[in-house]
Amino acid sequence: MSASVGAVTPQRARFDEGLTLASGATFPGYELVYETYGTLSPRRDNAVLVCHALNASHHVAGWHADKPKDIGWWDNMIGPGRPLDTDRFFVVGVNNLGSCFGSTGPMSINPATGRPWGSAFPVLTVEDWVHTQARLADRLGIERFAAVMGGSLGGMQALAWSTLYPQRVAHALVIASTAKLSAQNIAFNEVARRAILTDPEFFGGGFYEHGTVPRRGLEVARMIGHITYLSDDVMAERFGRGLRDRQVDDDYRFTFDVEFEIESYLRHQGEKFSQYFDANTYLLITRALDYFDPARAHGGDLTAALAPATADFFIASFTTDWRFSPERSREIVEALLNNRRNVTYAEIDAPHGHDAFLLDDPQYHAMVRAYFNNIAERLTKQGGQA
Amino acid sequence: MSASVGAVTPQRARFDEGLTLASGATFPGYELVYETYGTLSPRRDNAVLVCHALNASHHVAGWHADKPKDIGWWDNMIGPGRPLDTDRFFVVGVNNLGSCFGSTGPMSINPATGRPWGSAFPVLTVEDWVHTQARLADRLGIERFAAVMGGSLGGMQALAWSTLYPQRVAHALVIASTAKLSAQNIAFNEVARRAILTDPEFFGGGFYEHGTVPRRGLEVARMIGHITYLSDDVMAERFGRGLRDRQVDDDYRFTFDVEFEIESYLRHQGEKFSQYFDANTYLLITRALDYFDPARAHGGDLTAALAPATADFFIASFTTDWRFSPERSREIVEALLNNRRNVTYAEIDAPHGHDAFLLDDPQYHAMVRAYFNNIAERLTKQGGQA
Repeated sequence: MSASVGAVTPQRARFDEGLTLASGATFPGYELVYETYGTLSPRRDNAVLVCHALNASHHVAGWHADKPKDIGWWDNMIGPGRPLDTDRFFVVGVNNLGSCFGSTGPMSINPATGRPWGSAFPVLTVEDWVHTQARLADRLGIERFAAVMGGSLGGMQALAWSTLYPQRVAHALVIASTAKLSAQNIAFNEVARRAILTDPEFFGGGFYEHGTVPRRGLEVARMIGHITYLSDDVMAERFGRGLRDRQVDDDYRFTFDVEFEIESYLRHQGEKFSQYFDANTYLLITRALDYFDPARAHGGDLTAALAPATADFFIASFTTDWRFSPERSREIVEALLNNRRNVTYAEIDAPHGHDAFLLDDPQYHAMVRAYFNNIAERLTKQGGQA
Repeated sequence: MSASVGAVTPQRARFDEGLTLASGATFPGYELVYETYGTLSPRRDNAVLVCHALNASHHVAGWHADKPKDIGWWDNMIGPGRPLDTDRFFVVGVNNLGSCFGSTGPMSINPATGRPWGSAFPVLTVEDWVHTQARLADRLGIERFAAVMGGSLGGMQALAWSTLYPQRVAHALVIASTAKLSAQNIAFNEVARRAILTDPEFFGGGFYEHGTVPRRGLEVARMIGHITYLSDDVMAERFGRGLRDRQVDDDYRFTFDVEFEIESYLRHQGEKFSQYFDANTYLLITRALDYFDPARAHGGDLTAALAPATADFFIASFTTDWRFSPERSREIVEALLNNRRNVTYAEIDAPHGHDAFLLDDPQYHAMVRAYFNNIAERLTKQGGQA
């Protein structure tokens, strides 16, 4: 039996001390919004940090009392009796700096000007996020996480945690991720950014003060993203060449309006996204993806880059993921094994492409469940560190 | 020894009779621009029609006297001693109706209004193009082509010729093509179209009269296209994660401006394209791609759809082409074999992705050369039909 964590309440932490970023810039005080599920053990040894990907947030599981339909993005993974069991673990979800869901971001007021940051918001890296998350852990009294976990961009954060704060991570779960974007990955991000940057309503990032939203750019950016999240196969299966709204006949309409189901789906996704996501945040997050490359400081040697890590690792990939293919996960596994780390690697045969990490594929969830069961049992039996 | 056909001169043919389109609309008189290379034999049996893909034209080989650097898009394939040898064959390249390189298109004057067609230009299909090409063949006195040939969208035209005018095609060469777009293919087209349609300077297709060009939309559309033309591998090899213009240091700049080589390349391609290609034409041609699906009228049965064909076939695909993968070519081969057609199938191991059909891979060119040699020898020996 498993259940949702139910109604949850976001919390807010303020950090007044400035933060030196990877870019060399110093960011002033900031706020992070976060949620927690489950109970921190008296030993404070059962905390799990869940890092979010591109368009997600601190709202990982459950729902908010005022929005009961707004279920957390990894609700199927986290809750009482779920693979990451909140009866055993204390789970922390945090909205990253620069995001648009409550933490300080481009929409926030820049204290230096009294106006929204907009494009003056500094470019951030995965490592910058990890440092802000470490401060949140300090605030919560968590010296060492039983696990840091994430999928896609979230997996990059888990990987970065393992080398930046090795003593603070017992286990790192890196799912559907990569140690660096390929040229093709960067290319897709660049096209999405160009769509936003060239939208006349973007106003160089200052659209808040013009009362506009670069919806067209965001819409196109999201549509591009969506294509890369789904496998060719699952697109063929779900949409194929089916036509939209054909009650009467099955003829082409010979227009550039929606004709095929896949067009309708993509437009809908794009429109929805453009109504809630911030354009400056989209730029920031795609750039953080581009920049992530821990091996870069080591002449491209990923083994050297991961040498500081002391955690045990759970790495998972999905066979039909063409955004971050299994080969990319295997590179991480190889580098970790070169460093004699304990690695559990799962290559899941799932049809859904990159998005599979968000779905409840039974084999995948069983693997994660077993991995967390082991952590929980070690915590219980040894009464000590996982 | 092989050479270019050298300086060539485009020609123009006017067709006054209206054309009934697949959409049911009737298109009034139109003009087609074309080029020819080589000499039509006295028997008129050595003509080869070369059909163009998305952004190409009638200018297939050689150069124009006033633009000596503007080499035809398939110049490496066609010329004296080249795989399609103009010492033996009479080659015809034609700019399709609706294009923006001289044939009647959305920029042309709509006789009904005295103003540019713009978005009133009818949506066309691959089959419509084939019918206009057949009229050009009539005009040139070509009853039967020794071969109709094309890559990508051009391959679709060759395939359509083989069933619409079986008695007029001795050989069809269908290269890097498919019998129908997948949902993912349509998805990429749709994103490109959205970028154009939502560009404020598109003015619903009437931008000519506003003195604007939807450059931003065209730029994004072209960038998306380019990603699908190149293989992941060749992108990695040519660009990798290399940074742009780093004479002094190799540091990130922490901006959204060009940072990686791949970004610079894509932007350049996008900008160049937006300066010469017509936005309405881009919409038209991507829609023709989406709609092409000869099996559709036969309940999805490609074998039934290709049953009328009597030609011999040369089908080629490229291992790293993820736009129209070898699997898609194999579907065509299978349907042709079910119809007991003679089929030569080449699956070329080339790293360049979809664009490989434009390059002079030795194995690929050797196969095409051998195929045309056979045709030429049959023409010579039998003194009759190829």
